[in-house]
Amino acid sequence: MNLTILGCYAATPRSLTNPTSQVLEMKNRMFLIDCGEGTQVQLRKNKIKFSRINHIFISHLHGDHFYGLIGLISTFSLLGRQNDLHVYGPKGIKEVILLLLKTSGSWTSYNLYFHELDSKESEVIFEDDKVIVSTIPLKHRVYTNGFLFQEKTGDRKLNLDAVNEYGIETCYYNKVKSGSDMTLEDGKVIPNELLTFDPYPPMSYAFCSDTLYDETIVSLIRDVDVLYHESTFLDIDEQYCEKTMHSTAKQAAEIAVKANAKHLILGHYSTRYGSIEPFKEEAQTVFENVHLADDSKVFEFN
Amino acid sequence: MNLTILGCYAATPRSLTNPTSQVLEMKNRMFLIDCGEGTQVQLRKNKIKFSRINHIFISHLHGDHFYGLIGLISTFSLLGRQNDLHVYGPKGIKEVILLLLKTSGSWTSYNLYFHELDSKESEVIFEDDKVIVSTIPLKHRVYTNGFLFQEKTGDRKLNLDAVNEYGIETCYYNKVKSGSDMTLEDGKVIPNELLTFDPYPPMSYAFCSDTLYDETIVSLIRDVDVLYHESTFLDIDEQYCEKTMHSTAKQAAEIAVKANAKHLILGHYSTRYGSIEPFKEEAQTVFENVHLADDSKVFEFN
Repeated sequence: MNLTILGCYAATPRSLTNPTSQVLEMKNRMFLIDCGEGTQVQLRKNKIKFSRINHIFISHLHGDHFYGLIGLISTFSLLGRQNDLHVYGPKGIKEVILLLLKTSGSWTSYNLYFHELDSKESEVIFEDDKVIVSTIPLKHRVYTNGFLFQEKTGDRKLNLDAVNEYGIETCYYNKVKSGSDMTLEDGKVIPNELLTFDPYPPMSYAFCSDTLYDETIVSLIRDVDVLYHESTFLDIDEQYCEKTMHSTAKQAAEIAVKANAKHLILGHYSTRYGSIEPFKEEAQTVFENVHLADDSKVFEFN
Repeated sequence: MNLTILGCYAATPRSLTNPTSQVLEMKNRMFLIDCGEGTQVQLRKNKIKFSRINHIFISHLHGDHFYGLIGLISTFSLLGRQNDLHVYGPKGIKEVILLLLKTSGSWTSYNLYFHELDSKESEVIFEDDKVIVSTIPLKHRVYTNGFLFQEKTGDRKLNLDAVNEYGIETCYYNKVKSGSDMTLEDGKVIPNELLTFDPYPPMSYAFCSDTLYDETIVSLIRDVDVLYHESTFLDIDEQYCEKTMHSTAKQAAEIAVKANAKHLILGHYSTRYGSIEPFKEEAQTVFENVHLADDSKVFEFN
């Protein structure tokens, strides 16, 4: 599992910083999360192939999280994309994108599917054989969801020494990996646990931006491997949180503790601060394993 | 008069090139022309003060000419702008921008005026005491206008030696510059031409992008000082012009010749070409005074 931060600064694109967007690679799938203005250029700069992005998740319809979406959708068309594209986001996103396309007298070269969200409860919005994605309802000034990406438990790992020893043919390997016992030609049954190791533990990633400090999300993200939680402010500016419905670095760390997260990544920094290091220092007074998101930074988790 | 190119490449933003946007400074006014994705960052990089932009002209509603507009409008609000903002563009632009603002649950901190265009004839769309702006209807796949910016003839220039010699008091200078003759205390009338020089000749700038080669624009831009004319293709690819409704560098130069322009600036290059130098070489086979637009390039004309 790896995460490429395309942008992680609040409010407006600037010369050297970008609004929110990130790419999560999980089980060889690429998920684009949020799409602020400039995301398509950040994808190019980070050498992420456009054709690998088939699912885009939009947390909410503030500009710094989705004003790059129409440009990306248009560019996909200009490049002759054929693959289906799925967009998951708040109700209203379809109307906006379709109006923009209609206004420019254009349409996509590929099938574009919208999955509009309006539930205030967590729900599964994507599932295939390896990954499941569900919403994390957040508290912000407009309807907002975070997203929880969970790997499904994979196949058991083949014990190569053992399968060789018992003379299991390669055509049975998938059956063995799926957990079956094997019956040899002499009728002897070899229990699966002698032929395999436990599968890699499935990993999980929770994206939570933008949100007021909200303990109700803890039960949804409990034991998550990696939590990205917004930290727009430092604790000294905590008085702005209520009105703007954002969090401090300390509050993000408190959620990480309560959720028993293994890692916390901070981001969505207000541009009022000259340096982002104080965010890490503040969060580490509460939770140890803190990382700072920054544009074009890549995190690898195994 | 100076022109800052913020972006001048066709179709999509890329790591090192930007879609169309430029700032024309004329008579101390700043006019933003087109606003592709990333324009607000280009404005910052080129150190153009946001507060000086009060009039934005959008040629047409293809993404590479206006997908940066909503972000700029939003950023103006986030920065607490108070000045009125006027947007001139094709009918439909207001509906799109208002829907985007409504969707994000926000509104501007300033008065936002839309001047929607749907005329197929040239019309004056802006006029104050120093500058007049009119449309140049273009031939493109969607409704498109170029824009002609013309300085008005300014005051006559004071002949300081002469006004001193005749003892004209400073409180009469404005009257003299406006063209009045002066009557001295002894009743003698001094004709204005003895007290002043001719004013600076007014300058003009024509922005023509995107368009098929179209001689009907020649009468609208005759004798223009600076013509920016799109040159999406080189002559070897002229077969694409009809379908895409774009021009070649050679065709742009032919328009410059027919219009008796003093300078021609080329831009809106297709990204299929490795270098833009061939555009200049091709245009110069027809018209001598050719310049190549490029991102962040500034042209000064006096």
